[in-house]
Amino acid sequence: LCTASHENLIWQGEQLRVIRADDAHFPAFYRVIWQQHAAEFSDLCAAERASCMAAVVAVEQVLRTQLTPHKVNLASLGNMVPHVHWHVIARFEWDTHFPQPIWAPPQRPPNMPKLQQLGGKIETTDAAIRLALGSAWGA
Amino acid sequence: LCTASHENLIWQGEQLRVIRADDAHFPAFYRVIWQQHAAEFSDLCAAERASCMAAVVAVEQVLRTQLTPHKVNLASLGNMVPHVHWHVIARFEWDTHFPQPIWAPPQRPPNMPKLQQLGGKIETTDAAIRLALGSAWGA
Repeated sequence: LCTASHENLIWQGEQLRVIRADDAHFPAFYRVIWQQHAAEFSDLCAAERASCMAAVVAVEQVLRTQLTPHKVNLASLGNMVPHVHWHVIARFEWDTHFPQPIWAPPQRPPNMPKLQQLGGKIETTDAAIRLALGSAWGA
Repeated sequence: LCTASHENLIWQGEQLRVIRADDAHFPAFYRVIWQQHAAEFSDLCAAERASCMAAVVAVEQVLRTQLTPHKVNLASLGNMVPHVHWHVIARFEWDTHFPQPIWAPPQRPPNMPKLQQLGGKIETTDAAIRLALGSAWGA
């Protein structure tokens, strides 16, 4: 994650970028990636952590406003890719894994009509994220 | 999570408390629980979010210092219990699920000698968390 490639880039600034994961079962799955290499969240200084969480919260707020999910999931794991990145995922009661985490075994097959309906709102959501982050960082 | 019961309470202050999950396979699995009811992290105001993440980071730093884990995992999910709480989990290459998230299917059986060795360091880790949060909040 130190260098971007084949990413669906939504927004980027000097400190961080936001991508959308392009997960067929979770259309509203975004990642906030810290640009500079750091393995653990506590490797960032207090000001950097504040910037990073401000972006995570901005994405969460856009997802809530645009998509009214049942819950938003936030996670910084990085076991396979030890570079600070936050998963921000809008969760719905009808999704394949709810109420389990998306990494657990699925609970049910995909709900295609609901997925299509959600997919139809994603471009607007991307745009709202750009607006929220653009204004927050003056980009 | 609005009211504590049957919890392994490690530290608490007015705004938040820290418990240890008592998970047999993940001895160093802590939770930072916001005392007042809020469903989503973005329901907290900026100052509250800063306090909350300061506690999460303090726990992460103690885990790194005391246990030198391969990775620390942070997550705020709350699909089943929509009350703001952060999972802070020290992960090791030998643990049952590494490099997968702890919610994924296990990758291997528990390594009992390693678990016992880690378990032996938990009381000291609990004490170091109390010290870190006590000093941070003047409690």
